[in-house]
Amino acid sequence: MEILPERTVERLSHYRRVLSKLLEINKEYIYSHEIAKLLHITPVQVRRDLMLIGHSGTLRKGYRIRELISLIGTIIDNPEKYKVAIVGFGKLGHALLNYLTENESNLHLVALFDTNPEKIGTTNNNVICYSVDRIPEIIKRYKIDMALLTLPPQFAQLTANQLVESGVKGIINYTSSILSIEGAFLEQYDMIASLEKVAYFTKPEFYL
Amino acid sequence: MEILPERTVERLSHYRRVLSKLLEINKEYIYSHEIAKLLHITPVQVRRDLMLIGHSGTLRKGYRIRELISLIGTIIDNPEKYKVAIVGFGKLGHALLNYLTENESNLHLVALFDTNPEKIGTTNNNVICYSVDRIPEIIKRYKIDMALLTLPPQFAQLTANQLVESGVKGIINYTSSILSIEGAFLEQYDMIASLEKVAYFTKPEFYL
Repeated sequence: MEILPERTVERLSHYRRVLSKLLEINKEYIYSHEIAKLLHITPVQVRRDLMLIGHSGTLRKGYRIRELISLIGTIIDNPEKYKVAIVGFGKLGHALLNYLTENESNLHLVALFDTNPEKIGTTNNNVICYSVDRIPEIIKRYKIDMALLTLPPQFAQLTANQLVESGVKGIINYTSSILSIEGAFLEQYDMIASLEKVAYFTKPEFYL
Repeated sequence: MEILPERTVERLSHYRRVLSKLLEINKEYIYSHEIAKLLHITPVQVRRDLMLIGHSGTLRKGYRIRELISLIGTIIDNPEKYKVAIVGFGKLGHALLNYLTENESNLHLVALFDTNPEKIGTTNNNVICYSVDRIPEIIKRYKIDMALLTLPPQFAQLTANQLVESGVKGIINYTSSILSIEGAFLEQYDMIASLEKVAYFTKPEFYL
């Protein structure tokens, strides 16, 4: 199968989560326009995404929810649980820890890293916090696939390099530092850009 | 001026931040391919975005950095500081507070809200934490424009409704609950989708 566009993968992840919730309340079938409405996108977009993963739907009753969830899983999930580390166990690292351990997903949080001696060695939601000095050792030992960077921005690039050298294949950078990485997929989450975007779209002149 | 596409606004925010850092180290001019390289996008994309805001650049020396920063500001910023509240002062709320007070931007964090009596009434980085019961009063009194939702997902929809009724024009939803909002711009940040996307793009078959 061809590699899907980034936005499609994000939306498939959304679809699955919404569909799982509907399944819980015993809904069996859904139309593309219903999915679209729940996610504030167009029905055309939904149909295009689902066609990309080889699903055409039955027009009369809509898509069968259980089937769709399982199809999305075969497309976007890894066959094995995906191993994740959080590097920088501050406020945001802690929020991510809670998020990952409280929400169901195919991701398995394996390690936390920090520099603070009071945090090193502690166990949080069953995950151990290690010293950043042990990054290469722990990443290799547990074959960690992905790292979430929530450390001070000035250490982000060096740490990212070390993670990739140790075998990490995907990084989400939550710091304000803009990274350059080779040999791994990089996603930058820029909070300020996200805030400035919302500010832009709520300018009073657009409401006149 | 026409409303710009969402992705363009995000990129303009990125450009500005990168350019400001370059200005600090006394760089005066920059080429579109240099901006592109720093942000891992194509030079064509950069040129298209800058043409959209009415800048064409001087080919010989590139764009004048100071001018570009100021032009981006006139396009995406509000003339007045934009007032922001964080609703839910847990780990993520705290991380956002630090982020907003440590990074320069046109955003002014005015209030925090929580339900925990130990947090209500405290001052954090000069920002007061109020009871969520006071949302309508405080939002109206300080004319708060934007709210960041970091509260438990089951309270997200009701709180969002209340915020919009009180005058909020933009909401960023960091909870796992999918919201439906009228009369305000809504941005959902879905951490799980972001993680699943990175997992997808690091599947071993794409490296064969």
